[in-house]
Amino acid sequence: MEYKISDKLAALKPSAIREIFKSLTDPTIISFAAGNPNPLSFPVEALSRISADIFANQASFALQYGMTEGYTPLRQAVSERLRDRFGISRSFDTTVITTGGQQGIELTCKALCNEGDAVICENPSFIGALNAFRSNGARTVGVPLNDDGIDVEKLEAVLKIEKRAKILYLIPTFHNPAGITSTLENRQKVYALAKQYGVVILEDNPYGELRFAGVDVPTYKSFDEDGIVVYCSSFSKILSSGMRVGFVCGPEALVSKMIVAKQVEDVHTNLFFQMLCHRYITEYDLDAHIAGIRDLYRAKCNRMLTALDREIPSCIKYTRPEGGLFLWCTLPDGKDSAPFVKAALAQKVAVVPGSAFNCDENAPSDSFRLNYSMPSDDDIDRGVAILGKLAKEMF
Amino acid sequence: MEYKISDKLAALKPSAIREIFKSLTDPTIISFAAGNPNPLSFPVEALSRISADIFANQASFALQYGMTEGYTPLRQAVSERLRDRFGISRSFDTTVITTGGQQGIELTCKALCNEGDAVICENPSFIGALNAFRSNGARTVGVPLNDDGIDVEKLEAVLKIEKRAKILYLIPTFHNPAGITSTLENRQKVYALAKQYGVVILEDNPYGELRFAGVDVPTYKSFDEDGIVVYCSSFSKILSSGMRVGFVCGPEALVSKMIVAKQVEDVHTNLFFQMLCHRYITEYDLDAHIAGIRDLYRAKCNRMLTALDREIPSCIKYTRPEGGLFLWCTLPDGKDSAPFVKAALAQKVAVVPGSAFNCDENAPSDSFRLNYSMPSDDDIDRGVAILGKLAKEMF
Repeated sequence: MEYKISDKLAALKPSAIREIFKSLTDPTIISFAAGNPNPLSFPVEALSRISADIFANQASFALQYGMTEGYTPLRQAVSERLRDRFGISRSFDTTVITTGGQQGIELTCKALCNEGDAVICENPSFIGALNAFRSNGARTVGVPLNDDGIDVEKLEAVLKIEKRAKILYLIPTFHNPAGITSTLENRQKVYALAKQYGVVILEDNPYGELRFAGVDVPTYKSFDEDGIVVYCSSFSKILSSGMRVGFVCGPEALVSKMIVAKQVEDVHTNLFFQMLCHRYITEYDLDAHIAGIRDLYRAKCNRMLTALDREIPSCIKYTRPEGGLFLWCTLPDGKDSAPFVKAALAQKVAVVPGSAFNCDENAPSDSFRLNYSMPSDDDIDRGVAILGKLAKEMF
Repeated sequence: MEYKISDKLAALKPSAIREIFKSLTDPTIISFAAGNPNPLSFPVEALSRISADIFANQASFALQYGMTEGYTPLRQAVSERLRDRFGISRSFDTTVITTGGQQGIELTCKALCNEGDAVICENPSFIGALNAFRSNGARTVGVPLNDDGIDVEKLEAVLKIEKRAKILYLIPTFHNPAGITSTLENRQKVYALAKQYGVVILEDNPYGELRFAGVDVPTYKSFDEDGIVVYCSSFSKILSSGMRVGFVCGPEALVSKMIVAKQVEDVHTNLFFQMLCHRYITEYDLDAHIAGIRDLYRAKCNRMLTALDREIPSCIKYTRPEGGLFLWCTLPDGKDSAPFVKAALAQKVAVVPGSAFNCDENAPSDSFRLNYSMPSDDDIDRGVAILGKLAKEMF
């Protein structure tokens, strides 16, 4: 039988990152390609103790069907943390649990976009979000990213032309892949534009807790007096990514529709791990745990920056991130990064080409992404030395 | 801000079952409304032991990001069980893990249906599936259900007219809500029609392991020589529903597209519980465990049938199921069941009106659904007595 695949999925390609991941089964490859948190960031002992207690005392509840909106005590605990830590949530907002931050992104698009509607994105942007929009039949429209955030003038130009824009998708803090944190001034201008043009801001903040230098910039959601911001995040980078527990805070009138959609995607998120998260947040010192992760990533990032400063020719530029998991490197003179990435992989160092994050899937990119959360210090030194030698040969 | 909800979600109502569930927070209500497995069916001690071992020895892996297709050893174990227990899978098939059976249903529709395409369903059918189809902009087209399965003549009449039919959604074994198991003869005729008209059969089999009387009927998937059947099921009714671990076996060419869609919905299913499932299946006696669940549900079902035989006036007909979780009761002379259901709830007995399962959301129904897996024996006796007294007054 020949399967007639739906238009929205027929056009969707497996991401370039996934293809690179497949090559990583070779253990001799040094990988700067992943987006994984370091396993040292998982509080294994505490989760193990709580797990034993739930099995002993609440198993019938934890293993049974739960509410689509999420486990009520966890929703409450997340809501309080968002308020205390990020100044988030107004009376019109509600907080619900999703199956990872990814589901929050996908549900926001599903709730707002008809086929052919547009989602405006920073270019480059997170490939998982771009594909989530495409899988709902939405068009992704890229706006360039400057050092202070999305280009405001170009954003306004797009908003003027693009009558079917429904969502403005932003990763304002420790942007993946570009590593940029937008300024408050940029955020305020962008917020005003979104309000003026009636577009919902989807603020994706998976790395917001991972600041290891500099000072926090207020989230969009923290100044959302108008109910135009949906805020998505998760526990993937601070407790466990494999458990798939995320959350959304947004206007109840919109989030309630997302919950109807969630019900038909997976009924609810794994209840046992929702209970684990709740117990961990309320019984352990999450801030101290996160401080430990920050120390780890500060050291990893500094190690990689030191190696880059030593090895890489000065014609290649790279970000100096204050948090998150990624560095973003840019080749001179707008050169396509694809040949360099390919040559690096041949020398057993994996990085992700910038083209994997483009809104236009076929456009080349002069950049590539480096991850520093996963590799060992030794692999950072050896891998960057290989990249540096290669760069000196090629540029 | 006024949110412009997408057409496909704007029309989607929260299910009537959910509304009834909200009323169940009153502990004095006897509920025959749920679809939950009895918590006695969760192998708590074994899962607890395996969990402790995973935390002790494999935590870094179990809490990290995993593969979208699922944990390879679990895929292998499920594939072997499907082959040995249900005669399922050919060389062109693959088995992947989903976040509950629900996600398998939703992904099949997403991969095959454009907006306006049709999914042909038994009428009545599972509300979670109907809403999954609607959430993808598909139309649900109902075909009546007879005692031997979907009405073959009416199905063919629909297939002749309905040029945009992409999927035939069936719950052939212990149908929810109607409790019917279709005959092999019916299945063979339906399969031939689906093949002739180029429609994919989506076989939903969440209750297939729960047979407590009679003999198994071969699944559609077991005679799928043509690669036209996608088979969905889960561990929700035999290990834990709250963990949200399900699986799909279907043609690789189609399932690979579903996996691209799954990646942007939730990246992957909770990895820790995938590992728990794998360890349980391979290290414990799953068949013995399932035999225990069957004994429990046989006793529960017999208790409810005995009470119904004693209390209910003969003008009301009901099924005598050989497995699954539900009984289906039908009022005389095509009477709308809504007033009876409402009166029962006023007397603190909750049942689900048949209208909640109609393909046409606004059509009335002469039937209602009773669940026997959850209530205590005492509640079964008392609840059915109340329903019987009410029925004698009303009919």
